[in-house]
Amino acid sequence: MALQQTDVFGIMRSELDRVDARVEQAATLDYPLASGLVLDIVRTGGKRLRPLLLLLAGRAYTSNFDPLIAAAAGVELLHTASLVHDDSIDRAELRRGKPTLNSRLGTGAVILVGDFLFAQSAILAASTGSARVVAIFAGTLGDICDGQLREMLTAHRIEQSREDYEKRIYGKTASLFAASTEMGAVIAGADEDHIQALKQFGGDVGMAFQIVDDLLDITRESSDIGKPAGNDLRQGTVTLPVMLYARDLPPGSDRVQTLHAVIEGELTEAAAIDDLVRDIRQSSAIEESLEAAREFTDRAKARIEIVPDPLTRDLLTDVADLAFQRLS
Amino acid sequence: MALQQTDVFGIMRSELDRVDARVEQAATLDYPLASGLVLDIVRTGGKRLRPLLLLLAGRAYTSNFDPLIAAAAGVELLHTASLVHDDSIDRAELRRGKPTLNSRLGTGAVILVGDFLFAQSAILAASTGSARVVAIFAGTLGDICDGQLREMLTAHRIEQSREDYEKRIYGKTASLFAASTEMGAVIAGADEDHIQALKQFGGDVGMAFQIVDDLLDITRESSDIGKPAGNDLRQGTVTLPVMLYARDLPPGSDRVQTLHAVIEGELTEAAAIDDLVRDIRQSSAIEESLEAAREFTDRAKARIEIVPDPLTRDLLTDVADLAFQRLS
Repeated sequence: MALQQTDVFGIMRSELDRVDARVEQAATLDYPLASGLVLDIVRTGGKRLRPLLLLLAGRAYTSNFDPLIAAAAGVELLHTASLVHDDSIDRAELRRGKPTLNSRLGTGAVILVGDFLFAQSAILAASTGSARVVAIFAGTLGDICDGQLREMLTAHRIEQSREDYEKRIYGKTASLFAASTEMGAVIAGADEDHIQALKQFGGDVGMAFQIVDDLLDITRESSDIGKPAGNDLRQGTVTLPVMLYARDLPPGSDRVQTLHAVIEGELTEAAAIDDLVRDIRQSSAIEESLEAAREFTDRAKARIEIVPDPLTRDLLTDVADLAFQRLS
Repeated sequence: MALQQTDVFGIMRSELDRVDARVEQAATLDYPLASGLVLDIVRTGGKRLRPLLLLLAGRAYTSNFDPLIAAAAGVELLHTASLVHDDSIDRAELRRGKPTLNSRLGTGAVILVGDFLFAQSAILAASTGSARVVAIFAGTLGDICDGQLREMLTAHRIEQSREDYEKRIYGKTASLFAASTEMGAVIAGADEDHIQALKQFGGDVGMAFQIVDDLLDITRESSDIGKPAGNDLRQGTVTLPVMLYARDLPPGSDRVQTLHAVIEGELTEAAAIDDLVRDIRQSSAIEESLEAAREFTDRAKARIEIVPDPLTRDLLTDVADLAFQRLS
C-alpha cells in the first residue's frame, strides 16, 4: 500500500533541501534588487515535484544522490523560467496567490530574468557532464516552447481534437515530468528498458497533473487557487473540461454562442464568464475529465512495475496520486 | 598580408551554406504563419560572423567540417534568439532596416519565439555529443543574460568605470564570439593552449565589434544603419563614446546637463538628441573609441600566432578586420 503524502517528502527531505540550496545559489544575481525578486519566485515555488521525480527515478538504481542534485536543481529552474515567461505572456498578476514578477518589473526585465533562469538551468544540466542528459534537457525546452506556441496559436478554437489537446499539454507540462524521470534513471545508470519505463511514467503523471490543473481552473474558487477562476477561459484557452462541455451542448443554443463569444474574446464581462464557469461545473464534463486524469495515473502506475525497489515504487505511486489531492 | 573581405566568405562559402541550411531547418515551426516570420528573421541575418569564427577555429585543426556544422548553426541561432528578445525589450521597430518581429507580433509570441530559438540552439549544441561544448554554450547564454541585465540595470549612469562598460559588452557580445572560436577548437581536437588562445582571440574580436557598433550608433546616419542614430542614447544606455565625451565636458556646463537629461530619460525631444549626437561626433571621443577598438583587434591578432596553418591565420585576421570596414 502506498504511503501517505507527507512520507515521500519526509523521506526525500534531505535531498530536496540540497536541491533547494543549489537552486537558490544558481538563482542569485549580482544586483540586489533583481536578485531579491528572483529568489522570491524560487522560494514561493511549489512542491518541487519535478526534482522529486528525478531523485526518485535515480533512487531506484543508485544510493549516491550527488550526481542527481544538480540535474534536479536544473529541472526546477527550467520550470521556474518557463513560469516567469508564461506569466509575462499571460500578463498574469498573481501566481500561487502572490504578485508575479510581471506585476513588479517591466516586460523587458521579466524576459531577461526568465532567460537568465533558462541559462542557469542549462548550466546545471551541463554540469552533469553527460551529453545525453543535456540532450534530454534541450529537447524538453523545445517541447515546452512548442506546447506554449501551440497554446497561443491553436488553442482558441472550440473545435479541436482530443489529440490536439493532449499534444499541447504534453509539450507544456508532461514533457518536463518525463524528462525528469528519464534524467534521473540515466544519471543513476539504469538499463535502457527501465529508463524508457520511467520516462513514460513521468509523462503520464504529467498529463494527469495538467488535466487536474485544467479542472481546478474551473472548479476551484478564486481565493483557493490564488488566481481568478476560469482564467483559461478568460485567456481564450480551450481545455479538456471545456471541450467536453461544448461537445454536449445543443447545437445553436445560447450556451454555445456564449461559449464561442468568451473563447473568441468578444465577451469579457466577468458576470457572464462566472455564469459559464458555474454551468461547466454542473455538467458531466467535470467527472469525465477527472476520469481521463485517472486513466493516465493508472497507466503510469502500471509502467513502474519494472522498478526493482518496492519502496521506490511506493514513493513514485505517492507522487502520481498527488495530482488528485489538490481536488479535495 | 591578409586577404580581401570577399575571400574569407568565398573560401568558406560551402561550409557557411551548410550552416544556413541547418539553421533554417532548426528554425522551421509547425505553424506556417509563425514559421514564415521566424525564417524571415533568420534569413535577414547578418554575416554569420559567429559561425564563421567557429568554422575557422576548427579549420586550423581538422579538415572534417561535419561535426562543426551543428555547433556553428547553434551559435547563430543563439545569437538570433537573443536579438529577438532584445528587440522586444527595446521595443525596437526596425533591425537592419526591416521591421522587427516585435513590430509584427504581440509581446507574448515574441517571447515564445525567442525561447523556441534558444531551445533549438541548445538542441544543436547537445547534438555534438560533447559535454564540454554544451557547457561552453550554456555558460555563454548565462553571460549574455548577465550582460543584458547589466545594461538594463546599471547602464543608465554617466558615472561608470571603463571596467563596468567592458564587463557589460563582454557579456552582451564578446562572450559568444569567444565561445564560437573556443567551441570550434574544442570540436576539432586542438590542444588546450590553442583552445585558450582562440577563445581569447574571439573575445577580443567581439569587444572590437561591439565598440565599433557603439560608435556607429553615434556616427552613422539613420538611413545607413536601419535604425535611428543615437538609439543607445534614446534608450539611456551609456556607451564608450558617450563616456569619453562626458569625461571632457566642462563640469556644470549646459552640455553636461543636456547629456544627463537625455540619459535619464527626462529629455526625449528628437532635435535635442540630434544636437547631442552631432556634438559627440565632433569630439575627440570618436577617435579615442576607435583607438580602443583597434587595441582589441591588435591584441586578437597577436593571440593567434600560435595557430599553425598560415591560411587560417590570414582568414581569422580578415574577420578581425571586418569590424572596421563598417566604418568606411
